[in-house]
Amino acid sequence: MEPINRTYAPLQAFVEELVRCGMTHAITSPGSRNAPLALVLAAQPGIEAVSIIDERSAGFVALGMARESGRPVAVTCTSGTASANLLPAVVEAHEARVPLIVLTADRPPELRDTGAGQAIDQVKLYGSMVKWFVEVGNHDPGRESAVHHRALGCRAFATAAGGRPGPVHLNFPLREPLTPVREELDPRPWAGRDDGRPWVTSQDPARVPTTELVCGLAARLAGRRGAIVCGSTAEDIAAPAARLARATGWPLLAEPTSGLRCGGHDRSHVIAHYDLLLRSERFAAEHAPDVVVRLGDTPTSKPLRAWLQGVAQIVVDPHAVWHEPTRTAQTMVVADAAPTCASLAAALEGGAAPRVDGWLESWRARDALVPPALAATPAGFEPRFAAALAEALPPEATLWVSSSMPIRDVEAFFPQRPEALRFLANRGANGIDGVVSSALGASLTAGGPCVLLIGEVALVHDAGGVLAAGRLAAAPLTIVCLNNGGGGIFDFLPLAREADAALYEEHILTPTGVELSALASAAGLPHTLASTREQLEEAVRRPGLVEIRTDRQLNITARRDLYQAVAGALEAPLGASPSPSPGH
Amino acid sequence: MEPINRTYAPLQAFVEELVRCGMTHAITSPGSRNAPLALVLAAQPGIEAVSIIDERSAGFVALGMARESGRPVAVTCTSGTASANLLPAVVEAHEARVPLIVLTADRPPELRDTGAGQAIDQVKLYGSMVKWFVEVGNHDPGRESAVHHRALGCRAFATAAGGRPGPVHLNFPLREPLTPVREELDPRPWAGRDDGRPWVTSQDPARVPTTELVCGLAARLAGRRGAIVCGSTAEDIAAPAARLARATGWPLLAEPTSGLRCGGHDRSHVIAHYDLLLRSERFAAEHAPDVVVRLGDTPTSKPLRAWLQGVAQIVVDPHAVWHEPTRTAQTMVVADAAPTCASLAAALEGGAAPRVDGWLESWRARDALVPPALAATPAGFEPRFAAALAEALPPEATLWVSSSMPIRDVEAFFPQRPEALRFLANRGANGIDGVVSSALGASLTAGGPCVLLIGEVALVHDAGGVLAAGRLAAAPLTIVCLNNGGGGIFDFLPLAREADAALYEEHILTPTGVELSALASAAGLPHTLASTREQLEEAVRRPGLVEIRTDRQLNITARRDLYQAVAGALEAPLGASPSPSPGH
Repeated sequence: MEPINRTYAPLQAFVEELVRCGMTHAITSPGSRNAPLALVLAAQPGIEAVSIIDERSAGFVALGMARESGRPVAVTCTSGTASANLLPAVVEAHEARVPLIVLTADRPPELRDTGAGQAIDQVKLYGSMVKWFVEVGNHDPGRESAVHHRALGCRAFATAAGGRPGPVHLNFPLREPLTPVREELDPRPWAGRDDGRPWVTSQDPARVPTTELVCGLAARLAGRRGAIVCGSTAEDIAAPAARLARATGWPLLAEPTSGLRCGGHDRSHVIAHYDLLLRSERFAAEHAPDVVVRLGDTPTSKPLRAWLQGVAQIVVDPHAVWHEPTRTAQTMVVADAAPTCASLAAALEGGAAPRVDGWLESWRARDALVPPALAATPAGFEPRFAAALAEALPPEATLWVSSSMPIRDVEAFFPQRPEALRFLANRGANGIDGVVSSALGASLTAGGPCVLLIGEVALVHDAGGVLAAGRLAAAPLTIVCLNNGGGGIFDFLPLAREADAALYEEHILTPTGVELSALASAAGLPHTLASTREQLEEAVRRPGLVEIRTDRQLNITARRDLYQAVAGALEAPLGASPSPSPGH
Repeated sequence: MEPINRTYAPLQAFVEELVRCGMTHAITSPGSRNAPLALVLAAQPGIEAVSIIDERSAGFVALGMARESGRPVAVTCTSGTASANLLPAVVEAHEARVPLIVLTADRPPELRDTGAGQAIDQVKLYGSMVKWFVEVGNHDPGRESAVHHRALGCRAFATAAGGRPGPVHLNFPLREPLTPVREELDPRPWAGRDDGRPWVTSQDPARVPTTELVCGLAARLAGRRGAIVCGSTAEDIAAPAARLARATGWPLLAEPTSGLRCGGHDRSHVIAHYDLLLRSERFAAEHAPDVVVRLGDTPTSKPLRAWLQGVAQIVVDPHAVWHEPTRTAQTMVVADAAPTCASLAAALEGGAAPRVDGWLESWRARDALVPPALAATPAGFEPRFAAALAEALPPEATLWVSSSMPIRDVEAFFPQRPEALRFLANRGANGIDGVVSSALGASLTAGGPCVLLIGEVALVHDAGGVLAAGRLAAAPLTIVCLNNGGGGIFDFLPLAREADAALYEEHILTPTGVELSALASAAGLPHTLASTREQLEEAVRRPGLVEIRTDRQLNITARRDLYQAVAGALEAPLGASPSPSPGH
């Protein structure tokens, strides 16, 4: 490392440590005060630095990269309100356990709170939303500064990535020279470890349940009617969850982001359409479980959450965050999901408890009723497009699913498939903000095609993300936008009926009035209109914006009709009805 | 007031008090949790509620309205990251003393931090950036709730508007019913005061300097070479500042947002082009003052700030915030600027101290050299377009000036004019974020044409503001965008020369690549290309987007040539050179 000058040298040492720890990507937003951070990140071998003009987008692009790759991503911005624009992504990173390293440039203390331009109080700006805040301080050039900055880089990386991952915030007060003008500096004090390893390394412990706990739990599960509910998790739980399902004979109610619904693992216990099945009160009552094991985040499905009320639940909660909105769980298991599943399965495999006859088969047979019912809906029904992506996308694809209706439609309607498919979404705070930018970030690290499924209100909310995608000409992102002229999700609330119609349309539904083809054109992105499944399958093969214009009214009636059709099919006798549980 | 139901009734009481206190405008963003707040604001007589989809834009639109009107404006958003998007506008409101009332909907405590959707920790979300935070709480329906909410409305209004104005944050945990379904509620407990007055009124004191202070200051000013530096302030200081200038015989160095550079008041002491004059070291040295009185925010001009170094300064600081970046002021006067000027003038008018011969005349004669020098620059030189607005805009117009180059060019080049012109800008944190949205807000309350002068990087940063402007078809906003292919301000920093050229362009200059005509088209706004002053004058008569494509290189060379031309003109002998100060 060749130190440039007294401002740059400590940053060079800091960034070199980030790379030695494993960082591969960083985001820069333009500015004068943060030019040293941006230029050092951009010049650092091993880091791909991507420039995003709008800091709010920049935060979400970094979030999307870190979410996709599982590695900490750095994002730097200049002083002032620029840093405030990162808060939405920082909040989502906090809620969704995504490792972000926020590097804000600041004026040094003597220029703060004096009316100097672009100076705001950046100390603890993100409050309780970051795992760690550091005021980096100003230091005389030399070994002590180098050691401080190298240790800081390692600690920032380890803190963001370790334990329950999340955002960290380092505030750098920077003085002149802000430009990379060369100064005579002895390079020796600035050097890192000779062998190229990080200044400090840090590892998480294995978070495994105790044998006592596993044996106790296994006794509570054996021979009961149960289910395994799987949501989004940072772990790869496909194989251990499938093994636990085999050991119990239970259905796996697998939200797509759990990674269990699609792929080459054993999917014989996977139930994809639990949301539709549980809308039938009769089905829900007949399939009331004795006990449920929950892995990962709680799925969005309202019928599922209603069905969980009052049920004995064992929630695997590796970071002890008590994210359990049903408030009815009896047991929180503070351990990682994969070893917990594997240990439980091992304990049960050794036992001789009987399976509940027909229990799994009854779920499976009902689950199979949904795809034909969906196929019988009108061609313009939005969930059909979501489901069509199951055939259209190659195994190496990533599907980013927007909050609001897309995540619900994908949860309810996306079928199982034997090819893998990576589902990603902002499931921390479930916001509709920053969705395009997040998917853009994921597309830059995914190493394969990346498709975003989004409604037009969320798309317009993140118009800056669309423009950023255009600026990164090489981003392999295809945006599939379901344009139904407003926030269609509100149509399913009582609000749509009970509020004054004009006020509802203006303040709640909020049709955007934005011409999406022109927005694509402003960004320099290709725009395609698709109205059939075939056109969609064709269009998603290339990056750009694919617009599907749908009809809100049709969406309401077709959904109602479909629910009725599924309910009707569930009423019909099936051979595989389970024997009633002794406990009910 | 007819209470709708137990969720809505307290909000109706709260909002009614806001109107009784004087609120006229509010911004809503769509959501389910905040539907009660949005619908109550929208239905309230006396409030014009404007819907903005993107909360970041919404915050800035509210900020622009409050900045323009001087009245508190409410903004409501739903729970989750939506509220995080308001932070940039909250920060700017905090720094720029703008009264904002942020009404966030939240999930009630039992649904927080449990993994429930769209729930984040909103308690004190904006940290030290708000004057007041209130967790509003949940209450049984009845008189106590009504009193709580009515008093709260008055206190929120008074706290935002009083003292040093700024943002306040009220967090409303809302439970079902979130829809305006009618319930039988006795209206009597919910009523406000019979006479329609607010539940509580509150007034600020007069902040006037003591007679002792005024007499002491007057003695320090009398007979000296001095200047009055005027920046942006919440007060109307035109008449008292002009009076103080007459009483002292001093020049008024008037930044446009001070309101002194244009208008029908006595402008005989106003110097518009101090930024250019003070770039001449010889001029600055020959015009070194004995003492300076400063009113309002410190202007941006670097030559002005350099010239103030080491000078005895009296800073009028009504809210004792010490916003004095030169760090050389000797005296902070904690009083409002208008009465301070008037009292000082009165004290001096009664005295008999001699004027410094030729002092004002020397400034005036030099100030007159700048417009001809500007007129001799190439037609495509950006500041010419800024200056052209002085002739193009009617007296009832509002000119919102973006941060970065526009505010600097307007400060340096905008001439005096006899017709009034309202200048507004985000001078709190000087961010380039939210500028279009802020100007959009100002256009909705200004009651006359509103023009925004902005560069294309800031425009693209707030593309959401452009789309919001299109959605509000009636907004009388004309956006004049100087499109020079990147953040041209960086070209004037050493960075442009010393950084690697490719890294500089990609990470600092950041050309947007956005086709502005298509962006206008996406928003449904008319787009006009203007390349001459006449085309600009014609185009600003109508709302829409006016694009002026300029050349960054020409801008650099023409600016350098102009500085040299002005310096040369300043070298030439003028009759009015001031007699040297005895103190120098």
